[in-house]
Amino acid sequence: MPTLSTSDLDTPLITVDLDRVESNVRRMQESCDGRGLAFRPHIKTHKLPQIARLQLDAGAVGIACQKVGEAEVMAEAGIGDIMITFPIIGSSKVRRLAGLAKTVSLSTVADSTAGVRGLSAGLAAEGATAGLLVECDTGFGRTGVQTPAQAAELAQLADGLPGLRFAGLMTYPTLAGTAEWIARARGLIEGRGLAVERVSGGGTPTAFAGLEGGQVTELRAGTYVYGDRACVANGTVPLEANALLVRATVVSRPTAGRAILDAGSKALTSDLPAGAERLTGYGMLLEHPQAEIYGLSEEHGHVDVSRCPAPPEIGDVVSIVPNHACATVNLYDTVLVHRGAARVGVWPVAARGRMA
Amino acid sequence: MPTLSTSDLDTPLITVDLDRVESNVRRMQESCDGRGLAFRPHIKTHKLPQIARLQLDAGAVGIACQKVGEAEVMAEAGIGDIMITFPIIGSSKVRRLAGLAKTVSLSTVADSTAGVRGLSAGLAAEGATAGLLVECDTGFGRTGVQTPAQAAELAQLADGLPGLRFAGLMTYPTLAGTAEWIARARGLIEGRGLAVERVSGGGTPTAFAGLEGGQVTELRAGTYVYGDRACVANGTVPLEANALLVRATVVSRPTAGRAILDAGSKALTSDLPAGAERLTGYGMLLEHPQAEIYGLSEEHGHVDVSRCPAPPEIGDVVSIVPNHACATVNLYDTVLVHRGAARVGVWPVAARGRMA
Repeated sequence: MPTLSTSDLDTPLITVDLDRVESNVRRMQESCDGRGLAFRPHIKTHKLPQIARLQLDAGAVGIACQKVGEAEVMAEAGIGDIMITFPIIGSSKVRRLAGLAKTVSLSTVADSTAGVRGLSAGLAAEGATAGLLVECDTGFGRTGVQTPAQAAELAQLADGLPGLRFAGLMTYPTLAGTAEWIARARGLIEGRGLAVERVSGGGTPTAFAGLEGGQVTELRAGTYVYGDRACVANGTVPLEANALLVRATVVSRPTAGRAILDAGSKALTSDLPAGAERLTGYGMLLEHPQAEIYGLSEEHGHVDVSRCPAPPEIGDVVSIVPNHACATVNLYDTVLVHRGAARVGVWPVAARGRMA
Repeated sequence: MPTLSTSDLDTPLITVDLDRVESNVRRMQESCDGRGLAFRPHIKTHKLPQIARLQLDAGAVGIACQKVGEAEVMAEAGIGDIMITFPIIGSSKVRRLAGLAKTVSLSTVADSTAGVRGLSAGLAAEGATAGLLVECDTGFGRTGVQTPAQAAELAQLADGLPGLRFAGLMTYPTLAGTAEWIARARGLIEGRGLAVERVSGGGTPTAFAGLEGGQVTELRAGTYVYGDRACVANGTVPLEANALLVRATVVSRPTAGRAILDAGSKALTSDLPAGAERLTGYGMLLEHPQAEIYGLSEEHGHVDVSRCPAPPEIGDVVSIVPNHACATVNLYDTVLVHRGAARVGVWPVAARGRMA
């Protein structure tokens, strides 16, 4: 298959192969359909309304966003079902969330009494209603109530307050013990006469883990859409399905064994996703599999090319599978979208930079 | 002194204390003046034309940029003396560099024959001229020619080509062995009948290191303007001079010992500057010195508050000295500038996102 010509590109930049994105979207949707799971892609990876639209057209029930600002961009682009999977705290943010709840089908999460009461007050003041899922810490140790009993308490609190509709439970990631935890919470909540309409679980690496108990009804995943070096390593997105590359230029060959790229931590990120802590190096050079990006300055990638049979020379453009797609995309204002050799266009990463 | 009120801020965001910036600018300029060193601040840290202007008004001879895109923003803002301290490779970028060379006093660097010839061809084709400093690897092991003899070869090559004016030597960072290395290179170059008008050294942590031999004539530094946790640790910018904070909100208190912030790797960065690899944790919470940011998700900061006498509660806004100011700033489109309690304005980080 013909590949994208890169010799005229001003590097560093991100290229996105839309054919591969569409395959990844279809494959994940089919996997969910086959298991009877609703699928709700997380847009934190791509931050592009165009890809959110592809995901919905393929059968997703809605999208997940991590920030009010991301949700605002997606709502403005016409996405009608949005879940904000982050505890929204503070009257100014809750006011913006209420604005969203008046224009789209909105759900969000809370793991505290203060969180539930703050959402209720802000939503009710604007005459808006949002679905509320109680966030549960089923083993990851981040946000979320710590026990099924606490989940039931918060569910009942939410159910009785204006502006909120208790909509179920949310966890991240879905782990081995998740189903049992959720089953206990569900029992306690149903014992109080409330229905648990959705149980939302998440994570590309653990997408289909923890489903044995049949508790999770909805999957959220983001990284699957592009893949990255961590996904290649953990087997969830094979290299041939990887859809996102950072293109960089060799700008220096100071020694026989060293090449320097114009992509450093501000273009490749030094970040690693959870679970990939044992990955060494800062990306995979497709054209030079024996090369290792062993260090990053802000704008320099330091590459050991001593084991390459034909090391890259100054001026060569190389293609890098980054370690963590989500963190890498977050550094760029635009991506160059293509289908094989054909350029589709330069898309603004519309939901990037919406910090709050 | 009254401090900035933060309770109404939509977090996460960056705040910049302009009084402290001005003190840092003045202090560094005086240190250079006292040593007879020209000072050329690196704008990669702040990426703000307004602060570049402050630095020039205080006495800087010009600025350093790491990318053509950064230099374009600064030139457009009226900055008249710009050095691009990165080997610019590729005809498209060199053409842009030639455009800059026609409007400002431009200097740049090269460490290879290909680099020097590419710059010459592109500049001459546009009828432009730039100063060319030979980049020297005086011990850091990144870009730069490897020996004084190579430096002399490149100097002579540059001197004989159109579009270039050999302007001296550049290194980063200035290290213990730098003076001796540069003295040998200078001897070889002067032996060929060429003058070494500038020797540009750099780095906030090593600003005044390696100066014994009197070889370095110009200092470049960037991080000194804000400081960060690495600068506090290495003693170059004490905490009371730190000018940049990330403000974040506590959004969850799932356990007695754990607090979760709305600032993760996309707001605080997981990056560390060179030399700070032994720093543990992801930032310093000013209001809770016993707290430790022990983990980052993309949008969550995981804080151990078990040793805090009065741990922060949900809704509290906290102030974080980030580990690496340059990488943190690079995540934000705007910064909130203030003087003590008074807000000056929201400034766009104009040179951010100019990847190429």
